[in-house]
Amino acid sequence: MDIYEKIISLAKRRGFLYPSYEIYGGEAGFYDYGPIGVLMKNNIENRWRQFYLIKERFFEISTPVITPYNVLKASGHVDEFIDEIATCQKCGASFKIEDLENEHCPICKGNVEKGKLNLMFETFIGAKKKEKAFLRPETAQGIFINFPFLYEFYRKKLPFGVIQIGKGFRNEVSPRQGVIRLREFSMAEAEIFFEPNNKKHPKFKEMENEKLKLITEKDEEIFISIGEAVNKKIIGNEALAYYMALTKKFLIDVGIDENKIRFRQHKKDELAHYANECWDAELYSERFGWVECVGIADRSAYDLKAHMEYTGVDMRVFKKYEMPKKIKKKIIKPRMDKIGKKYKEKTKEIIKKLKEIEIKEKIEKLRIKIGEEEIELDKELFEIEEVEEVISGEKFIPHVIEPSYGIDRIFYFILEHNYKEIEKEGEKYVILSLPASIAPIKVGVFPLVNKDGLPEIAKEIEEDLRKNNIIAFYDDKGSIGRRYARMDEIGTPFCVTVDYQTKNDDTVTIRFRDTTEQIRIDRKEVPTWIANKL
Amino acid sequence: MDIYEKIISLAKRRGFLYPSYEIYGGEAGFYDYGPIGVLMKNNIENRWRQFYLIKERFFEISTPVITPYNVLKASGHVDEFIDEIATCQKCGASFKIEDLENEHCPICKGNVEKGKLNLMFETFIGAKKKEKAFLRPETAQGIFINFPFLYEFYRKKLPFGVIQIGKGFRNEVSPRQGVIRLREFSMAEAEIFFEPNNKKHPKFKEMENEKLKLITEKDEEIFISIGEAVNKKIIGNEALAYYMALTKKFLIDVGIDENKIRFRQHKKDELAHYANECWDAELYSERFGWVECVGIADRSAYDLKAHMEYTGVDMRVFKKYEMPKKIKKKIIKPRMDKIGKKYKEKTKEIIKKLKEIEIKEKIEKLRIKIGEEEIELDKELFEIEEVEEVISGEKFIPHVIEPSYGIDRIFYFILEHNYKEIEKEGEKYVILSLPASIAPIKVGVFPLVNKDGLPEIAKEIEEDLRKNNIIAFYDDKGSIGRRYARMDEIGTPFCVTVDYQTKNDDTVTIRFRDTTEQIRIDRKEVPTWIANKL
Repeated sequence: MDIYEKIISLAKRRGFLYPSYEIYGGEAGFYDYGPIGVLMKNNIENRWRQFYLIKERFFEISTPVITPYNVLKASGHVDEFIDEIATCQKCGASFKIEDLENEHCPICKGNVEKGKLNLMFETFIGAKKKEKAFLRPETAQGIFINFPFLYEFYRKKLPFGVIQIGKGFRNEVSPRQGVIRLREFSMAEAEIFFEPNNKKHPKFKEMENEKLKLITEKDEEIFISIGEAVNKKIIGNEALAYYMALTKKFLIDVGIDENKIRFRQHKKDELAHYANECWDAELYSERFGWVECVGIADRSAYDLKAHMEYTGVDMRVFKKYEMPKKIKKKIIKPRMDKIGKKYKEKTKEIIKKLKEIEIKEKIEKLRIKIGEEEIELDKELFEIEEVEEVISGEKFIPHVIEPSYGIDRIFYFILEHNYKEIEKEGEKYVILSLPASIAPIKVGVFPLVNKDGLPEIAKEIEEDLRKNNIIAFYDDKGSIGRRYARMDEIGTPFCVTVDYQTKNDDTVTIRFRDTTEQIRIDRKEVPTWIANKL
Repeated sequence: MDIYEKIISLAKRRGFLYPSYEIYGGEAGFYDYGPIGVLMKNNIENRWRQFYLIKERFFEISTPVITPYNVLKASGHVDEFIDEIATCQKCGASFKIEDLENEHCPICKGNVEKGKLNLMFETFIGAKKKEKAFLRPETAQGIFINFPFLYEFYRKKLPFGVIQIGKGFRNEVSPRQGVIRLREFSMAEAEIFFEPNNKKHPKFKEMENEKLKLITEKDEEIFISIGEAVNKKIIGNEALAYYMALTKKFLIDVGIDENKIRFRQHKKDELAHYANECWDAELYSERFGWVECVGIADRSAYDLKAHMEYTGVDMRVFKKYEMPKKIKKKIIKPRMDKIGKKYKEKTKEIIKKLKEIEIKEKIEKLRIKIGEEEIELDKELFEIEEVEEVISGEKFIPHVIEPSYGIDRIFYFILEHNYKEIEKEGEKYVILSLPASIAPIKVGVFPLVNKDGLPEIAKEIEEDLRKNNIIAFYDDKGSIGRRYARMDEIGTPFCVTVDYQTKNDDTVTIRFRDTTEQIRIDRKEVPTWIANKL
């Protein structure tokens, strides 16, 4: 068994992950989180909120997964979110181009026909299939189309950030990498709106010495501080660099091995249709090699502009200059007398139209439209005058920096990076060295023996821990060694054991997962002691 | 404006709820949770976890929303999850039967054709639309089909409970009640597996005096303790009654008005296809009247049986009797001599077959099949003997009790039940009296004036609160009165104000939302003081 098979086997046996729809023969590209898995997944998402909601002070929103056709037509996903596929003319199966064998069907060796496939799941809203819709390919669009509400909510001040945690969908052609390539997945995305010319982060100074391993678009590997990388224009702007460094901090915080993180820049031809610069946080797997788990992209004004053009709703913000600016401008000065004489009752409308025209070049004639009628004005009917105008600010479409996290992949990598096999009394022994904040169960609580009142005391302690919102697990099955082993295998950092001494002096042992060291403390102090360790 | 319009207007203005896809003209049946709304929704869901995950000790799982056709064919949803609809022959619009006007189209008065519509959103998994699937109508099926894994996880012991919080989907024909009738909604469901003959709850005793307002299936309204209701067989079993009482406790805990809760029993003809008894927790709205927000159902063995029959996977559990039971059984005793003589080399196989046959009635002849050949055995070839057998236990399909919560409706009702309009200095003044645990923002932090170092101190306090995971909001815009008003309107229970005295003695004021009373405490104690109140 390689590492992936070991992890998946452990995950299934102990309730981290179950293959979806197993009693129905299974469904590729789907995975269930089991009872232990959900606890860990919720911990990861809540740590992510710690970083982005509590510390960065962003707010979270939650929008539907069902997305009307128009939204994703505007965003470019209808036309661009596609894979090139090949369909076998003999057996009918479909594949990604890269999965073909010598340009033939990998199953039956038949000839294939190549084509394109949009990767969004389709559905219809309402009776009689009236309105085409998709399951969202990313949570980001739900944030972009709410920009007018959100800008108002943030009292019309840039920059601000909005996060969303939820499901995304991608109808993969033939997903064969288990939990690494899912058709339905959990994402955590932040969209941060900036002035186009000011992608600075207020806390950049605190982060600038943070060093990252980068693979640039020229395939050069460098280890460099983000301050230097921005100075040398290796990373395009401060904000992008800041969120790359924050991503590294987050990944280490949830248990990813620091030495198995790198940031790879997308080459021009692999950039998504909406991005003008993108760095993937890649994590190293013994089975899969380097795998993209987070994308940090500069989406520029792409999305807001697209929705503005499609809907006509103004997505621009107005920025007042510190000092009003004077600009020179050429305007048309109509010769009222001559126009009045020639056009009579149409004069008023003509004058109105002329006022709207801005002049860039020298002109001889003017063509305007009044209702259905086109009118040509000769140059004796108007003059060109240069005037000075005072403007107080300007309108622009904000730019977006986006860190986008794939929660399921991060979940898998936390398991892989913390999986340790040792030998104990001649047998294989597994320890999952999860950070305490991520561990599904925080404390195992055991009576040394199932008699003399020890189980009752242990149950009280477990109850106490739960009252303090600490997930504890009471266990009295099998030897104490077996019980420790079961807890080590799912990453439980602490085990509390009630023994005969407890009945004398009210103390219990606390055992540490990684060192197997034990200490004794007063049983009353257990919840506070544990809470402090989390 | 009626109460609903007031709530929706407040919700939109202050970031609780936004109508989905508004810049695209809106989409009926969908709502977004805004920045303030998500904080509150997450609080509701986490309180729900407190009740079901921490206190009831259930585990949570998370399964996909995309569900293959077979699963929902087996569960009965393909055939039973339908609405009767009418489609106008003139303008093409579709309606629920109850929305017709004199049996005609409510829009153009045209003639209608009646039909049935399955309410599930359809989609397809994989390229070339190979495999039909649906968006799940409930999270429950994801739990049922994992029963074999979950039973193993719970060490093969009943009863046990499993919860799921997530999206459900229902393609409503013409949803017109805003946030009350959504096409995409959030559910929190618990599925608790019991022995069919033992639907008791270990904590029933603690809860038995809890009184509920019931509307029975005979439309009788009674106010009765759950203990008495079970005794009088008004509620079918202890478990059902316990989860009804727990539901009431939860609803009050998150801010629902105790006097606006009742439990209405489904009449035989309104029971869902899977339920044999169901009580809805209905909440009262000044706009909508009584609205179902939670369903507590006895689903019996319906779902597990359905999946077992469809897949052939055994969903039964084995229960060992406390004492082995002796039963009497009629078996066939072959006359070896006569069979051997007549059937020669086939004798061995015939004997084997005869051993498998159980006899219920008196018989004259036996017909058995050996390979393709049918053999008829006359009664001189065998005898019937009555024997005693010892059996150690039996197999059965567990029954399920399910409390199923509609989170979005509960969210709305919390707003409606806590919305208070008073008059202040001649103007309308709104207070949202949310429980502190549910309030989106826990503390507003203000400098009295924007100078003399007061903003800096206030910002430090806000930072301190956030470090303690308390959502605080710093505000220095407008008069102190306006700032209090903005916090009252979104239900913030406490406001901390930094004034000139703070600079002298390091104390700040804490103002209480509901009483406007103020106290002074040391600024260092603020996080602990607030944490204790939550």
